[in-house]
Amino acid sequence: MQIIDGKSIAEQIKQEIAAEVAARISRGEKRPHLAAILVGHDGGSETYVANKVKACEVCGFTSTLIRYESDVTEQELLQRIDELNRNDDVDGFIVQLPLPKHINEQHIIEAIDFRKDVDGFHPINVGRMSIGLPCFVSATPNGIMELLKRYNIETSGKKCVVLGRSNIVGKPMATLMMQKQIPGDATVTVCHSHSKNLVEECRNADIIIAAMGQPNFVKADMVKEGAVVIDVGTTRVPDATRKSGFKLTGDVKFDEVAPKCSFITPVPGGVGPMTICSLMMNTLKAASHIF
Amino acid sequence: MQIIDGKSIAEQIKQEIAAEVAARISRGEKRPHLAAILVGHDGGSETYVANKVKACEVCGFTSTLIRYESDVTEQELLQRIDELNRNDDVDGFIVQLPLPKHINEQHIIEAIDFRKDVDGFHPINVGRMSIGLPCFVSATPNGIMELLKRYNIETSGKKCVVLGRSNIVGKPMATLMMQKQIPGDATVTVCHSHSKNLVEECRNADIIIAAMGQPNFVKADMVKEGAVVIDVGTTRVPDATRKSGFKLTGDVKFDEVAPKCSFITPVPGGVGPMTICSLMMNTLKAASHIF
Repeated sequence: MQIIDGKSIAEQIKQEIAAEVAARISRGEKRPHLAAILVGHDGGSETYVANKVKACEVCGFTSTLIRYESDVTEQELLQRIDELNRNDDVDGFIVQLPLPKHINEQHIIEAIDFRKDVDGFHPINVGRMSIGLPCFVSATPNGIMELLKRYNIETSGKKCVVLGRSNIVGKPMATLMMQKQIPGDATVTVCHSHSKNLVEECRNADIIIAAMGQPNFVKADMVKEGAVVIDVGTTRVPDATRKSGFKLTGDVKFDEVAPKCSFITPVPGGVGPMTICSLMMNTLKAASHIF
Repeated sequence: MQIIDGKSIAEQIKQEIAAEVAARISRGEKRPHLAAILVGHDGGSETYVANKVKACEVCGFTSTLIRYESDVTEQELLQRIDELNRNDDVDGFIVQLPLPKHINEQHIIEAIDFRKDVDGFHPINVGRMSIGLPCFVSATPNGIMELLKRYNIETSGKKCVVLGRSNIVGKPMATLMMQKQIPGDATVTVCHSHSKNLVEECRNADIIIAAMGQPNFVKADMVKEGAVVIDVGTTRVPDATRKSGFKLTGDVKFDEVAPKCSFITPVPGGVGPMTICSLMMNTLKAASHIF
């Protein structure tokens, strides 16, 4: 059994990006530039954005943080997005979600030029991914595909069960895993809360990607010997013994499932660290003008 | 066993649309208007477009056929598309595929305003469908969903196996069948040429949607008693006993599979007649300004 070390892979990728940026600079090319719009002062969002800015430093990117108070109007945001769309120096940008309730998130997402949409949330990018055209893939699925690639995990023709059908993980994960490409080319099954045969599907799976958001949902008797298990869950389960008051818990009961696996991602330290790294990969791609 | 009569359902829907159009006209509203661009004189394309124009008449739509010789430039087509995008009288339009080789089909598809893209091929519509936003679904998947609905076929929680992962049938079919909606809400598995466990997946399926393009691929021993079988295949198999010289053959060995099914679509007369009907439904939707 091998533990997939997302933390160290993420560090490695950021170093590779930094080397690529240094090479570009030495050739007189432009430094990649990521901008982030942050509205309000939500603790989680502040942390995420701060970590993204830090990752930009490691990668050698220019970063711009644009802050608004939570009473900003949708119109003001749309205007700023329009400016960023037109600003040739900005290669990609994100609007940190969630937004205050008076702002329609879908309007904001769709206002972003898909060629700068490094979060990969714009319907054009979702559609282009499905069709197999150059696109930006959102952070979590992008990170998982990178882990499968870096660990040389065989996927072609394998039975891959995706648990969960969310727009940001389950559905894009299924799309990527069924594409005629490596990693991918798998026989993909998507299970969800209404699936009658979920346990049986899991038992027959060569690869399980758990993204239900239900702590410890996948147990040992649901996993076949030698399976690959990717755990996307990150639920905060109360834990009085910890200083934070909670324990970050995956969708997989790690202790009992891990011994049966050929590969497994831990929580934390598996898929999680790859998400910001994916954003960095997308920003480098945006700066390479693939469209 | 019940045979799903696509031909009669398609006729019924066209009559329903005609009634709706008549009601709109009597309220002083605009008559829906579909335009079609046809390039060259390919026999198949000529027939398809002629049938679409005929269907428009049945539905009470205005139709405009725009013809170009096969030496038309991409630029000329793009300019005409731009005009159609801006023409308020045209609710939806299609460019009949395939196009001559010197024209990039993807450029043409992406030039169409997605709000008029009644073929549902634009990446924005593909992405919007995946996310669950209002959109145009392409003809074949749209028609199959309508058949499932009209025959009250239970899909929620059922195991649905889609054979084939094409952009125009397999992938959108999978997306629709897994959405949290009825019909849909199924546990969906997509199998393809590289799937190692295809036969086993089919044997466990409550619903099989066969879109491989391999005549008579699905045999009786691959189908469970009581399954629902939807056959998307339409391969022309040489047949000297017929005037046409060929027999339109589905992906399912109908004679041996049908007795085991609860519902099955025949070829011809099943999914086929629904495709033009889907285009009519989309045109009515375009004229209703859902976006």
